[in-house]
Amino acid sequence: MVHEGAEDPMAALGLPALSRVAICGGTHGNELSGVYLLRELQKSRQEEAPDSVALVTVMSNPRAVQQCRRYTETDLNRCFTDATLSSPISDRTPYEIVRAQELNALLGPKGSADAVDLVCDLHNTTANMGLCFISYSDCDWICLHICRHLQMPSTPVRYLHYNIPQSEAYSLESVGKHGFAMEIGPQPHGVIRADIMGIMAEGVRLMLDWVCRFNSGEQFKGDKMEVYTLVRNVDYPRDPATHSIIAAIHPQLQDRDFCLLHHGDPLFLHFSGKTECYPWAEPLYPFFVNEGAYYEKGIALSLAHKNTVGIPPICVQRD
Amino acid sequence: MVHEGAEDPMAALGLPALSRVAICGGTHGNELSGVYLLRELQKSRQEEAPDSVALVTVMSNPRAVQQCRRYTETDLNRCFTDATLSSPISDRTPYEIVRAQELNALLGPKGSADAVDLVCDLHNTTANMGLCFISYSDCDWICLHICRHLQMPSTPVRYLHYNIPQSEAYSLESVGKHGFAMEIGPQPHGVIRADIMGIMAEGVRLMLDWVCRFNSGEQFKGDKMEVYTLVRNVDYPRDPATHSIIAAIHPQLQDRDFCLLHHGDPLFLHFSGKTECYPWAEPLYPFFVNEGAYYEKGIALSLAHKNTVGIPPICVQRD
Repeated sequence: MVHEGAEDPMAALGLPALSRVAICGGTHGNELSGVYLLRELQKSRQEEAPDSVALVTVMSNPRAVQQCRRYTETDLNRCFTDATLSSPISDRTPYEIVRAQELNALLGPKGSADAVDLVCDLHNTTANMGLCFISYSDCDWICLHICRHLQMPSTPVRYLHYNIPQSEAYSLESVGKHGFAMEIGPQPHGVIRADIMGIMAEGVRLMLDWVCRFNSGEQFKGDKMEVYTLVRNVDYPRDPATHSIIAAIHPQLQDRDFCLLHHGDPLFLHFSGKTECYPWAEPLYPFFVNEGAYYEKGIALSLAHKNTVGIPPICVQRD
Repeated sequence: MVHEGAEDPMAALGLPALSRVAICGGTHGNELSGVYLLRELQKSRQEEAPDSVALVTVMSNPRAVQQCRRYTETDLNRCFTDATLSSPISDRTPYEIVRAQELNALLGPKGSADAVDLVCDLHNTTANMGLCFISYSDCDWICLHICRHLQMPSTPVRYLHYNIPQSEAYSLESVGKHGFAMEIGPQPHGVIRADIMGIMAEGVRLMLDWVCRFNSGEQFKGDKMEVYTLVRNVDYPRDPATHSIIAAIHPQLQDRDFCLLHHGDPLFLHFSGKTECYPWAEPLYPFFVNEGAYYEKGIALSLAHKNTVGIPPICVQRD
């Protein structure tokens, strides 16, 4: 059963089977590829149950989906820290905190042996990021191997790493034993583009394909992979008095996510006409460039450095 | 003062001066080019008052702007019919209806001699429409001449005509003696793109330039212009039971606004994989293709036919 020739199968790292996999959409209610792909999965999965995987499909924030908004009271995908998941609930608790605790009961509890083995949470961005895995670990071999398996001609596939401790990891995928957000753009929020939805459908298909092959005993060879690690977020220039933004992403940076920025490269075009440049000595890779949902979070773009990570050969652990 | 050589100045149609001009932004609070351009105009206009024009700048829906939403309770830009403008106000009247009546008092009253001479209402669309004038008349020579004046290398400029009686005209620009929406895309709602905002700034600059030249006595020669007239709107295919959409705009149609559609051309790609084609015999021009705000209105795209309209030479009416 060695399809992807691990030269020395004896060296493969044994990892537990991925028996329970959750695919979540609508964590942000106006990111429509995930919402509609999830509905399609829920229709089709009623007939064709996969052999080696118990698949759970979850519409994470049905109220926000119904209103076609990111969230109703607070951003659900910032509610999965240990602190928020254990906070007391009252009549005045925002809906999304109540819902996060429900999802944690369904898919977790986070950090416990009962948690699902893998969470894939479907997202869209207005930024030109192609397909990105976003994960809290750069040594989760399952996530890295799945990402490596998702090579497709229609879009670049990259792995983004947020270096945050698990207890403070704030997003839904942190509830699983393994997990990642599948972030695809560019697509305006509140809009479905067939091309972007097609990429997401193919990404989910390849992920499930990998999981089934892994569970069935296939060995996957080691490799080197590029991993982008978040260094810092950069806010828009703002008026100190009103806090209103006074510049847009520079046209030379717009749509150029993951194109390395050097000292002096244009970052912002002020409404006054002035260009503001990249002020740092260290070149870094921009991403989430002009993401619509991040204006309110004070993020115009994020910056990452790129590392090469060695990933070991892996196979399912024999009982 | 004949700059644009009207061959026979005696033939020019005399029209009243455009003494009071209103530029409005934020009629939809998440269409950000207009919101931020209006703020810039409000800053700069405090210093440089134009000679021949009394310019009014209006943030139409400040509550929606503050929340970065299209509207808070109902779509403001559907509230300017005679019926809604004269409806009684109570404690339960939606904010936008109250605001429409305020704006009508400020800029109108609609249809009266007191109304401002020209309303330019700034909008964005997620559709790839370039810059469009949208007007309720295909014989408003002022709007047509201004549109003709707005030729720019960075984007196509087109004139869209909605054939609706003035009393039922529902949008803000119908309050002025002349008026048009300046619609620019593609731009996601809730996002500012420097390129799109630059096109809008240039469009507003050229409009004010034309108005000042018109008021100062310049004659503008007659011409022929292409005018697109709305024929019908087309909804997404929907599940009859849930009303949920079951198809996206076909990738071959996406981003191809104003490319003539013929019988059999792809319109929709169903999530099931099926392609649904253009069913009509008459070829028509699509626009507002996949506009994000129109999902809730049941509009996937609109269809227009194209006419050539002769516009007469005009000049300001001498007192």
